[in-house]
Amino acid sequence: MTHALTLNAGSSSLKFGLFELGADDPALIASGKADRVGGDATLTLKDAAGAKLIDAAAIPAEGVVDHHEALAAALKALLDHFPVAQINTVGHRVVHGGLDHSGPAVLTPGIIDKLSQLSPFAPLHQPHNLAGVRAAMAAFPKAVQVACFDTAFHRHHPFVNDVFALPREYYDKGVRRYGFHGLSYDYISGELARIAPDLHAGRVVVAHLGNGASMCGMRGGRSVASSMGFSALDGLPMGTRTGQLDPGVLLYLLQQEGLSVEQIITLLYKKSGLLGLSGISHDMRTLEASDSEAAQQAIAYYTFRARRELGGLAAALEGLDGVVFCGGIGENSRLIRERICDGLHWIGIEIDDDANAANAPVISRQNAPVKVMVIPTNEELVIARACATLGKRGA
Amino acid sequence: MTHALTLNAGSSSLKFGLFELGADDPALIASGKADRVGGDATLTLKDAAGAKLIDAAAIPAEGVVDHHEALAAALKALLDHFPVAQINTVGHRVVHGGLDHSGPAVLTPGIIDKLSQLSPFAPLHQPHNLAGVRAAMAAFPKAVQVACFDTAFHRHHPFVNDVFALPREYYDKGVRRYGFHGLSYDYISGELARIAPDLHAGRVVVAHLGNGASMCGMRGGRSVASSMGFSALDGLPMGTRTGQLDPGVLLYLLQQEGLSVEQIITLLYKKSGLLGLSGISHDMRTLEASDSEAAQQAIAYYTFRARRELGGLAAALEGLDGVVFCGGIGENSRLIRERICDGLHWIGIEIDDDANAANAPVISRQNAPVKVMVIPTNEELVIARACATLGKRGA
Repeated sequence: MTHALTLNAGSSSLKFGLFELGADDPALIASGKADRVGGDATLTLKDAAGAKLIDAAAIPAEGVVDHHEALAAALKALLDHFPVAQINTVGHRVVHGGLDHSGPAVLTPGIIDKLSQLSPFAPLHQPHNLAGVRAAMAAFPKAVQVACFDTAFHRHHPFVNDVFALPREYYDKGVRRYGFHGLSYDYISGELARIAPDLHAGRVVVAHLGNGASMCGMRGGRSVASSMGFSALDGLPMGTRTGQLDPGVLLYLLQQEGLSVEQIITLLYKKSGLLGLSGISHDMRTLEASDSEAAQQAIAYYTFRARRELGGLAAALEGLDGVVFCGGIGENSRLIRERICDGLHWIGIEIDDDANAANAPVISRQNAPVKVMVIPTNEELVIARACATLGKRGA
Repeated sequence: MTHALTLNAGSSSLKFGLFELGADDPALIASGKADRVGGDATLTLKDAAGAKLIDAAAIPAEGVVDHHEALAAALKALLDHFPVAQINTVGHRVVHGGLDHSGPAVLTPGIIDKLSQLSPFAPLHQPHNLAGVRAAMAAFPKAVQVACFDTAFHRHHPFVNDVFALPREYYDKGVRRYGFHGLSYDYISGELARIAPDLHAGRVVVAHLGNGASMCGMRGGRSVASSMGFSALDGLPMGTRTGQLDPGVLLYLLQQEGLSVEQIITLLYKKSGLLGLSGISHDMRTLEASDSEAAQQAIAYYTFRARRELGGLAAALEGLDGVVFCGGIGENSRLIRERICDGLHWIGIEIDDDANAANAPVISRQNAPVKVMVIPTNEELVIARACATLGKRGA
């Protein structure tokens, strides 16, 4: 029996999953998260059913806990609870694969070096992802390290969905519309092939609505266009990120408001989106429960921009056969799905209120021209599958 | 008989028109342009039929020609050719009216002062527009000065089309989706009411495709949404401007490429768009005539982005009854209209090739669900009409 460890290392967190690799699809054994890495870090561990085995326990350390120590604590907890685990492969979520990667890759020193060179394209994520890789290489010097890239699923966009209208030299040096959330879209594409092959073959917009949010236009199960482009800022408004923003606003903030680049980064990534508009919270559940006008306006903006983006992606696809909602908000918020779909009757979207209220797999009316689905996404499983394909199948 | 002078003052140009105001719609008598204001300025004057009375004649000056001198030269030429002109009203195109103006306004010192305070929102245009106002006040101290704002037509956007997902304080201090090209949209709305009242009452996307370019979603003849927002940069790609751009690209240019704000402004406003993508020209006619791959890619991007924006605006309008093309490219390029409409069969757009080749008023097929029109726009006439309404009707 061999196992894969999946890692998703952020700036101050480390999510992990333990999967058993066998003849079938990888099977989740346990998952968990180290929070506040770099500070007073805590560890949570759950079994496959989601029951908490460890609940936000402090990670003991001299000084601050870095990614190495967080991983060591996670491994110790995993092996305490699952002593049979034989981790031969470690799969990493890496936000940016650049131009070279349209699928997962076995990490070599040369590839890691190239991925480091992409940090200027994703300075808030890539260095932390690679810190997770280095921690795992130190902890498992003999394991295969596999990287799964959020950009890979989008790498075959046609030129018009890959370029900005800047002088060509910027395209050549990598200023492109990469698109992100690729692991989620990859999973949804696979699920469509399995449970709705007619949609998989057609034109579908997938709305990944989590704390980050984007939409992907797929044709034949492949990404044709994304609402995110060069960075994780563009497109839909998010919990704390702006989404679409007139470039003139940045020039105004620099020239007239006198903000520094660092202040603008904090503003656009951390203080905007639902949080900025509502002044209350980045969390959609909090806003849905609020009767403040600002919260309702934030929801109205969020759902309107999603609708407008969906119309744009339908144009990119030259029509629409289906819509899939996923991510924390997409999978669980009846209200948000209803509000996004409300203005889209003209494109063939008609929602069945009961099905929508139940978060049912299909929430459109039976004979509506466009099929609307809710599919829980599973990015960790996509990483575990890459481990099964590319990793060591036993000692 | 009274006359109105219309002025459109840019950074290095001054366009003007002389209109006779009577019982009917203002009648054009002459129009012209001073080019290279601030340098070796020249003057061109045409009669109402477009015949050149003066063709790029040097404007004599000691030192450089400023807006005052350019206007003086234009007036001298106008009065030489049309000595009966009694200019009692001067109408100005002013790009930004801020939050106060949803229609034209008679300029008072207080209003001019407030408009000056909007210059940070449109630093490349507003100061020049106001330089034209000052030149006209000096030349016509007794005339009524009327301002027509490019933002006014959009001022009643619903909140979701007026706001960005930034902290609310920015909305309160005026960081909003103003939209521009309002004089053109105002004219088109009036023409629709006159020649296609069914469309005027319905949901229409107007594509103003000139050297600048934007789209406006109208319902009942009023603007509901625009592709341009805070600045004249956003939305559709233009001759030398980027259109839509991931805000992360600006952060990259600042942080990684080390560009200054001034360099970025030059890059995004002057070196991008069709010029940047093609490396050949900002002029669509040149690109259409070119067989270079880069020119063809620039056209493909331009038409694709227009299509995607049109889908987004249809979503904002909750459906689509008509499309209107206007502006230099919109009125004259069969190819661009065809290419934009090509991927929009799914939304009910079907083009009649012969009508399109003839730049006919209606270019959609007879029974197509969406009516597609070509309407030559006339921004100067909108200014002249405001002069007729708000100005002096005689001595």
